[in-house]
Amino acid sequence: MTDSNKSMDKIISLTKRRGFIFQGSEIYGGLAGTWDYGPLGVTLKNNIKNLWWDMFVSRRDDMYGLDAAILMNEKVWEVSGHTGAGFTDPLVECEKCKKRFREDHLEDVTTCPECGGKLGEKRDFNLMFETKVGAQGDMKSYLRPETAQGIFTNFKNVVDTMRPKMPFGIAQIGKAFRNEIAPRDFVFRSREFEQMEIEYFVEEMNWESAFDEWRETVWLWIHALGLSPDNVREYDVPADDLAHYSKRTIDFEYKYPGKGFDELLGLAYRTDHDLKSHMKGSGEKLMYTPVEGEPFIPHVIEPSMGVERALMAVLAEAYTEDEMNGETRVFLKLKPELAPVKVAVFPLMKNRPELVAKAREVYQELKETIPEIMFDDNGNVGKRYRRQDEIGTPWCVTIDFDTLEDNTVTVRARDTGEQVRIDLTELVSFIQK
Amino acid sequence: MTDSNKSMDKIISLTKRRGFIFQGSEIYGGLAGTWDYGPLGVTLKNNIKNLWWDMFVSRRDDMYGLDAAILMNEKVWEVSGHTGAGFTDPLVECEKCKKRFREDHLEDVTTCPECGGKLGEKRDFNLMFETKVGAQGDMKSYLRPETAQGIFTNFKNVVDTMRPKMPFGIAQIGKAFRNEIAPRDFVFRSREFEQMEIEYFVEEMNWESAFDEWRETVWLWIHALGLSPDNVREYDVPADDLAHYSKRTIDFEYKYPGKGFDELLGLAYRTDHDLKSHMKGSGEKLMYTPVEGEPFIPHVIEPSMGVERALMAVLAEAYTEDEMNGETRVFLKLKPELAPVKVAVFPLMKNRPELVAKAREVYQELKETIPEIMFDDNGNVGKRYRRQDEIGTPWCVTIDFDTLEDNTVTVRARDTGEQVRIDLTELVSFIQK
Repeated sequence: MTDSNKSMDKIISLTKRRGFIFQGSEIYGGLAGTWDYGPLGVTLKNNIKNLWWDMFVSRRDDMYGLDAAILMNEKVWEVSGHTGAGFTDPLVECEKCKKRFREDHLEDVTTCPECGGKLGEKRDFNLMFETKVGAQGDMKSYLRPETAQGIFTNFKNVVDTMRPKMPFGIAQIGKAFRNEIAPRDFVFRSREFEQMEIEYFVEEMNWESAFDEWRETVWLWIHALGLSPDNVREYDVPADDLAHYSKRTIDFEYKYPGKGFDELLGLAYRTDHDLKSHMKGSGEKLMYTPVEGEPFIPHVIEPSMGVERALMAVLAEAYTEDEMNGETRVFLKLKPELAPVKVAVFPLMKNRPELVAKAREVYQELKETIPEIMFDDNGNVGKRYRRQDEIGTPWCVTIDFDTLEDNTVTVRARDTGEQVRIDLTELVSFIQK
Repeated sequence: MTDSNKSMDKIISLTKRRGFIFQGSEIYGGLAGTWDYGPLGVTLKNNIKNLWWDMFVSRRDDMYGLDAAILMNEKVWEVSGHTGAGFTDPLVECEKCKKRFREDHLEDVTTCPECGGKLGEKRDFNLMFETKVGAQGDMKSYLRPETAQGIFTNFKNVVDTMRPKMPFGIAQIGKAFRNEIAPRDFVFRSREFEQMEIEYFVEEMNWESAFDEWRETVWLWIHALGLSPDNVREYDVPADDLAHYSKRTIDFEYKYPGKGFDELLGLAYRTDHDLKSHMKGSGEKLMYTPVEGEPFIPHVIEPSMGVERALMAVLAEAYTEDEMNGETRVFLKLKPELAPVKVAVFPLMKNRPELVAKAREVYQELKETIPEIMFDDNGNVGKRYRRQDEIGTPWCVTIDFDTLEDNTVTVRARDTGEQVRIDLTELVSFIQK
């Protein structure tokens, strides 16, 4: 298919219609920038997160998992700089209608785009959600705007308890929150989102080789998600645009339909900025003591990924329209590992009890090995194929009258529509392959 | 061992020392009621969550997963009653020192336990954390105090997209937050916690049989966690103490060390209260339309479980002291499915390269099949056993000089300390069994 047939609107519509992603608080008119994940969405999202954890934590010897709390002592955010000017959006208020806007999103920064009133002075709007903790009402806290700081503040705990060898990383998957003035582009920029972050600790002299290794590993991740390399590009952030603590950052951008290249994930060399800051801020010694030699503050390579952006890229990449039997067909060409439903089982006809009973039996047996499975006897087989195509089910298994005779079934492949006849005893290994 | 050897202090100390659970924001003096999970804690917690999801969602045909946002439209909490008097703690303030206390925790409700000042009138303190959403600064929101409402508000979405047959359930794992005046008992009552909740929708006439089925299923879950039935009891909440919407609730209580029986999880029949409330509050039709018959509002059975309470019970159950080789030994008798490390691999001696090389080789091979594995060559084998015992590793594999000759290794079992000699080719199947 041509890329022009893909559009975010089509994808958003499909994900809502088929139980992937709903607007948050929908029955109450929503809450802008929040999204709820339905039965298929949560499975797809879990598949992405599990793939990440498996690849970056379980399968490696140099990684340690972590799950820090969302609510942290406010000092964390003072020290990290998030309460300051660096974590704000420029905001202007209309003096007439009192509406507020992001100054950098306005074409004309003098008059209100809604009522034409005069816009006031720009002020910095902090993106952290604030709350109060405890009954005394004086303990300020924030919903963390990133998971990274929970890693830095636990650096000492991990080193003391796990005694890792250098280099090593700490990995975390968890929610983060930003009070975006203008949440936009579906789940791309939302107020509540999920990060998959790694802080990888190295000796300063090794930062470049570690950075290069992570750059390659990031490409493996992109491949694991099933994204075409043609749709991903690296943006080496120019020195002038780097955060003050970073000596090098590459943004990996995905070509989202209708939107063009925009952020998918980031890879940053953060020097020893964070540990140094928290060491100063907390008075704790956040250093690494090698077997031989002096204690030192490690430097940090940070691969930082967003669950929702990965999900959005995966959905965009997978969304496909082609022609089958003279009709336009929509299907999600998901990698089987990511597909929320791996197999669908159909009886050829709904009103033949012997077919339904056999189909149920096949379904139950398959479910023992492949739990992500669906039974469908609604409508004719063609309609069922369409439904399964739309949610990206790689295989459909149909039980017909021949099955009752010779124990074979029809297995139909999502991407090609091709059908093969398989003996039931070989079904599991066929699908797993 | 006798139960009297178990104490929460010992368990807390072990979990901190060995990288399971740390105080939240520890290097900044903490944030009361928050906890961070270290490398072993996050794995143990994930094992519990994955077991739950597998048992209650993946393996069943009648369950649908969900992941709703933490931030919801404030109307949700008005309608659910959480902004009202039902979700508060009684709070009194000292007129002298201004400190605040939970009235129901005080022995003397007239004078301050800290300064002896006069305590003021009791007032209701709402347990929800409040925040503001959006740049206008006028959109109030809360950190959800339970995951359940995210399920009810998505009832229509799930019914419309998945077309489930009755009875069916919607399941969710996610964070919830309560601004406890007095967080206490380790992770038992914290301000940030994780719930595993199911809302199971039934026809009214079937509520009792569904309740009974869930009661049995809950016991299967308790068994799956490895909790002894002797340490769990049911508390059938008397009619007078039931929430106004519930016609029956059973609290399942665990006998926590030093604390006695207290809540582990709950099973409640909530009638049609929630869907009815949200239907009225939102104006949406939250009903189920059967193939034959009139649309109706389903009734709800709610099994509600907490990740941290499950974790705390699992740790308490597993914590064991016995005598081995004349010394007191501490070990976590975790079910192998839950243990964060399944196997540890040791070279008998650290300074013999051929042993270390072979041990590395065995480690790498095992890791292909069993990623939750650890390599340890620190100290003597006895010390390594102690360390693995403390984190609950079921099997330790030692590579010695005989291994180099005959390809066999010593496998030592955690619970008994017994050692057997196993051929390397049989190691994986031995451990998996």
